[in-house]
Amino acid sequence: MKKAPDENFLFLTRAGIDTHQEPVVYMREDCHVCRSEGFSAQGRVRICVGERSIIATLNIVTGDFLSHQKAALSESAWKLLGAKEGDKAHFKHAPPVESMSHVRGKLYGKPFTLEAARQIITDISQERYSDIQLSAYVTSCAANAMSLDETVAITQAMVECGQKFAWGENVQVLDKHCVGGLPGNRTTPIVVAIVAAHGLLMPKTSSRAITSPAGTADTMETLTNVVLTFEQMRKVVHDQRACLAWGGSVALSPTDDIIIRVERALDLDSEGQLVASVISKKIAAGSTHVLIDIPVGPTAKVRSAELAGKLGTLLKRTGEALGLHVQTVISDGTQPVGRGIGPALEARDVLAVLQNKREAPPDLRQRALTLAATLLEMGGVCGHRAGLGLATSTLDSGRAWEKFVAICEAQGGLRTPPAARHRHDIVAPRAGVIAMFNNRVISRLASLAGAPNAPAAGLDLHVRLGDRVEKGQPLMTLHAEAVGELEYALDFCNAHPEVLRIEEEVV
Amino acid sequence: MKKAPDENFLFLTRAGIDTHQEPVVYMREDCHVCRSEGFSAQGRVRICVGERSIIATLNIVTGDFLSHQKAALSESAWKLLGAKEGDKAHFKHAPPVESMSHVRGKLYGKPFTLEAARQIITDISQERYSDIQLSAYVTSCAANAMSLDETVAITQAMVECGQKFAWGENVQVLDKHCVGGLPGNRTTPIVVAIVAAHGLLMPKTSSRAITSPAGTADTMETLTNVVLTFEQMRKVVHDQRACLAWGGSVALSPTDDIIIRVERALDLDSEGQLVASVISKKIAAGSTHVLIDIPVGPTAKVRSAELAGKLGTLLKRTGEALGLHVQTVISDGTQPVGRGIGPALEARDVLAVLQNKREAPPDLRQRALTLAATLLEMGGVCGHRAGLGLATSTLDSGRAWEKFVAICEAQGGLRTPPAARHRHDIVAPRAGVIAMFNNRVISRLASLAGAPNAPAAGLDLHVRLGDRVEKGQPLMTLHAEAVGELEYALDFCNAHPEVLRIEEEVV
Repeated sequence: MKKAPDENFLFLTRAGIDTHQEPVVYMREDCHVCRSEGFSAQGRVRICVGERSIIATLNIVTGDFLSHQKAALSESAWKLLGAKEGDKAHFKHAPPVESMSHVRGKLYGKPFTLEAARQIITDISQERYSDIQLSAYVTSCAANAMSLDETVAITQAMVECGQKFAWGENVQVLDKHCVGGLPGNRTTPIVVAIVAAHGLLMPKTSSRAITSPAGTADTMETLTNVVLTFEQMRKVVHDQRACLAWGGSVALSPTDDIIIRVERALDLDSEGQLVASVISKKIAAGSTHVLIDIPVGPTAKVRSAELAGKLGTLLKRTGEALGLHVQTVISDGTQPVGRGIGPALEARDVLAVLQNKREAPPDLRQRALTLAATLLEMGGVCGHRAGLGLATSTLDSGRAWEKFVAICEAQGGLRTPPAARHRHDIVAPRAGVIAMFNNRVISRLASLAGAPNAPAAGLDLHVRLGDRVEKGQPLMTLHAEAVGELEYALDFCNAHPEVLRIEEEVV
Repeated sequence: MKKAPDENFLFLTRAGIDTHQEPVVYMREDCHVCRSEGFSAQGRVRICVGERSIIATLNIVTGDFLSHQKAALSESAWKLLGAKEGDKAHFKHAPPVESMSHVRGKLYGKPFTLEAARQIITDISQERYSDIQLSAYVTSCAANAMSLDETVAITQAMVECGQKFAWGENVQVLDKHCVGGLPGNRTTPIVVAIVAAHGLLMPKTSSRAITSPAGTADTMETLTNVVLTFEQMRKVVHDQRACLAWGGSVALSPTDDIIIRVERALDLDSEGQLVASVISKKIAAGSTHVLIDIPVGPTAKVRSAELAGKLGTLLKRTGEALGLHVQTVISDGTQPVGRGIGPALEARDVLAVLQNKREAPPDLRQRALTLAATLLEMGGVCGHRAGLGLATSTLDSGRAWEKFVAICEAQGGLRTPPAARHRHDIVAPRAGVIAMFNNRVISRLASLAGAPNAPAAGLDLHVRLGDRVEKGQPLMTLHAEAVGELEYALDFCNAHPEVLRIEEEVV
């Protein structure tokens, strides 16, 4: 068969369209490449410029904004390919993503092997999966729960395809994590400050929110720069023994962010994927000892002590299989922690605790102290049961606050969190006692108000379980940066009275 | 709280971008609507024009091609909304798709109720699911196999949200179906012609290919018009007692096509969804009696007699629960049927059988006769075991061909199938006996050559199981309409020698 002459190219241009993560290429249906290759809308296309190539989803342009000699790329495709205006690009059908056969196998009950996990995670990290395929992968992990071996395989594959920190031989590197699901549970900045004040090594990387209104990285971003390069992070840790950075910016376990985006769109995360996500980031960050907080409550992510025990075991054993020492602590997850929910509002609570202010939420303070105490003991700075006293004195004396300021300064300076332009009080419809909070509905409410994309957005809770309220008394204040979002959160609040329950007081 | 004044609108324009099915809206990030509503890339947005509204995925335009006063719609969004250039549209955050909670529940083992099925299928039919959400639905059905009750619920919901044909009280309406997975098994046009020649009512609607290189609708489209309106189809059936139309064009079970698109992207279809798809189309088409062909073979869709029995039972019992009489026949699925694979090549084989040509593939003829025989018996035109003789004489006498021509004429005229511009022979690498065909690899090969989007593309098989071949003898001919596709299919063929197996002859 005769090979076609080398005419199969178009010149690239930047479409100026942000499709988020999925790379998209825009081509005319009647251009010579679409005709000779037989491309059609939504097909997957391989685009090559010199040695570099990416796979993108094809959107067919039927209007006149593109010439027959050009193909336009979405922002994500443009960046992924490292394209320049006028680059000469060749086009082919994208080969089928072979690792999808493992995803289909998993759906029908065939467990992931290490080799399968490596192929899948490599393909995801190279952005070879379309959104539809990513969704199937995430869903398959949720549906047929991954075994310990599978979870270890996925975790290892996720570690392998990203960067990895090494802090030196025989160095103890501490870390903490919360599995989430409890709004306002922002203990990390406080814990890191206390632990690092004692010279223990705690190079903390955090993720952004998955389905919650804020992650630690979102909250810290309202206080300082969290987008550090590998080298910047290393310098901060060298000088301060700790940092509070966003994990995604240093490419630790980079597939995690791709997977998280899809989990967020589905409002879903699976136990195995959750464990792989947590443990892979800890190992990639070079941690040796990690303390994991598992809040338990009927509306928290983990609903019963039994499930928490199961999750804890999977976390410990996955860590163990990959050389990471994991300790877990089960905590109360029946109501949100602190007052603020949303990046800036939580940052305000964190500052209040660190600065020993009178309005500091006592529950946030207590939870941070408990976790810091265990880490101080794990780190060997004090004996068993001596941790709580040491953590408390470190906080009360202002040493933790000094350390926190020093870390923020090293990351680029301490900032004041922004305040929202629009606020609205939600008041008690009747008198009574606060009998129940629905963490999920509260998180949803804060998200609808704009958190975490709008960092000042979210809500402030004015009551806690057991509080007595009068009719008309403010229960919470919604904060939003856009009128549309405030209205939308209010509509949702009116439609969901189960956000909290007020019971009549029995005298 | 004060309501914002009515300024929250933009003027619509047509983007001229075909994103396939998912509706997309293009807006500037710095337009007043994005700013006041807090929209961001890939967010889901509700667009209202007067009383009409749709939900679309937001792509942010960072270039200059869109003014601040305009929002552009993809082709699918434009059609779904029925928009006109310059329409004044209002924008809001799309409410969360509540029925996704049932999909999440299913993933964790909670079966679909009828109410859940109705909510999901209604949301899908209104195109409220993003591609990511559709993929999770499809995957959840594959992972936690649906029970009979769930399958009945999804089937009923799919019937309810589309149009439904009624052919009159107490009228027997015949239908046939093949669960697929066997390339070239294009019996339907022959069966319909034989059955309708006896005056039985068989208003056949077929789907396009899911993951295969051709569906009956794709094949028939190379011979006549298959895109009929409800009224056109009714007229054809009134005059001819039968039709051979595309089901999607008359909105019978319209969600099916949306689901099929995602299944195709994932190369996945689940048993429950398969049964719901088949039975819902039959009920919506007004059928009362349906015969279902289940080919069984190691590389067919159904791999063992045991699985075929299970599928047959689910088909029968789902049909029964909804008032449809289902009969099944298990057939040989060890090798492709006929010679051609791909719309036009299969059409050629169908014509050869109907016209009693010498080159007519005997296996295709025999399979069609067997199915037609059972339908003639089900329809009461002849006694038990008399069907085969009657079907054979109908075909041999030319009555079936006459009927077929009449049906095609009624649908707009009989056409000659197109021929492909590019052809390439694949030859035997050594002498021996054909010992095995891999139906899946053969289907993939025909798809890569361009079928069914390029109707003339596909392949022609020149050998069958047990045939003796010499080295260099042609095994098959690839047909393609584009050079790129031919090359691509060839590359695939070279990389997959398991397309068929030649064993040394034992003398």
